[in-house]
Amino acid sequence: MPQLLRVQNFLLSTDGYGAGEGQSLERPFGHADPATMASWAGATASWPNRTEPGGSRGLDDYLVRDFHRNIGAEIMGRNKFGPQRGPWADHEWRGWWGDNPPFHTPVFVMTHHPRPSFTLSDTTFHFVGGEPADVLAQAREAADGRDVRLGGGANVVRQFLDADLVDTLHVAVSPVTLGAGSRLWSSPDELLDRFHRDVVPSPSGVVHHLFWRR
Amino acid sequence: MPQLLRVQNFLLSTDGYGAGEGQSLERPFGHADPATMASWAGATASWPNRTEPGGSRGLDDYLVRDFHRNIGAEIMGRNKFGPQRGPWADHEWRGWWGDNPPFHTPVFVMTHHPRPSFTLSDTTFHFVGGEPADVLAQAREAADGRDVRLGGGANVVRQFLDADLVDTLHVAVSPVTLGAGSRLWSSPDELLDRFHRDVVPSPSGVVHHLFWRR
Repeated sequence: MPQLLRVQNFLLSTDGYGAGEGQSLERPFGHADPATMASWAGATASWPNRTEPGGSRGLDDYLVRDFHRNIGAEIMGRNKFGPQRGPWADHEWRGWWGDNPPFHTPVFVMTHHPRPSFTLSDTTFHFVGGEPADVLAQAREAADGRDVRLGGGANVVRQFLDADLVDTLHVAVSPVTLGAGSRLWSSPDELLDRFHRDVVPSPSGVVHHLFWRR
Repeated sequence: MPQLLRVQNFLLSTDGYGAGEGQSLERPFGHADPATMASWAGATASWPNRTEPGGSRGLDDYLVRDFHRNIGAEIMGRNKFGPQRGPWADHEWRGWWGDNPPFHTPVFVMTHHPRPSFTLSDTTFHFVGGEPADVLAQAREAADGRDVRLGGGANVVRQFLDADLVDTLHVAVSPVTLGAGSRLWSSPDELLDRFHRDVVPSPSGVVHHLFWRR
């Protein structure tokens, strides 16, 4: 089995932005509202943060529960890991996710600024520089035969697309527009030279774009 | 986690038939052509019988690879198990699937005609009578906390629907008509009194109907 590099459940606005402008500790997605863009996922039975029984078991649920299937490592950008920019002032920041991060695998945070690895529950964060291909090689080795999830943000996904390293992408386009921010594409048609695509409108209002390599 | 009873990848004609008339050893689906009705699944990367690399990784692939997820037992009708009807003449028939059946769990074959259990590779077939609720209780116990797949045919799915025991159904409706045979429904709307539904047309031409309990 090949070890795929997969983008899963990547939330995007209709105009192609994964996050808004002005990202900060208080507004991790800038002027974008992640609760709105993730509402399709939060309504499903498989949503991991669900606190009460119930939830839909239709199309959206298939996509939510596929998030962890056969994933052995994640790669993310430094801007997904935290709101800091530039050299680390200290090492107190340990991500947005509390003591039990939702990854449960090694996570490779791409940054030019070195920092020691650390572990929270069953997630270990590594801080790595280098080209996308180098980072992917490290993540593949850590994934122990399983696939690697490319967790974003949009700039990181673009880097790996430009290096032709992505095997599959699932992008969930919400009926919101952001106008500015961190952009994945001007149009999803940009990827059609290298990918097949299914466009699947969900009854929930989100449109799932599923790409796989030609 | 509740133990669900799930119908997965159930192939159906546009007019509601899961198999045609005249089922036999030579024509397990009667006058229906299973290769046509399963072609959407066979084109996917996750199709277990795939003999060459490639295959689509879009919508249909999500549905194919969900077939085994968290399944701990299957229930099937005797007509799915084989072409014989009435009392067993002997016990030589061991199913359609050769020495390595694709179930990999206990399988409960519903029949009024008793027969000893037997094992092929990691699949054990049990032959059980009784009401759907009794059969489900046995399958749940064997599934060891995981879900139970209701494998069909259409008559068996109907029995469990009529007893209100089904939690989720995925029915893949192909653009073929059969006119006669083993029928699941006259219209999928029949289930809307008890189920939510997503209708998801795939670019492959099949239409996925996803039902979950209200």
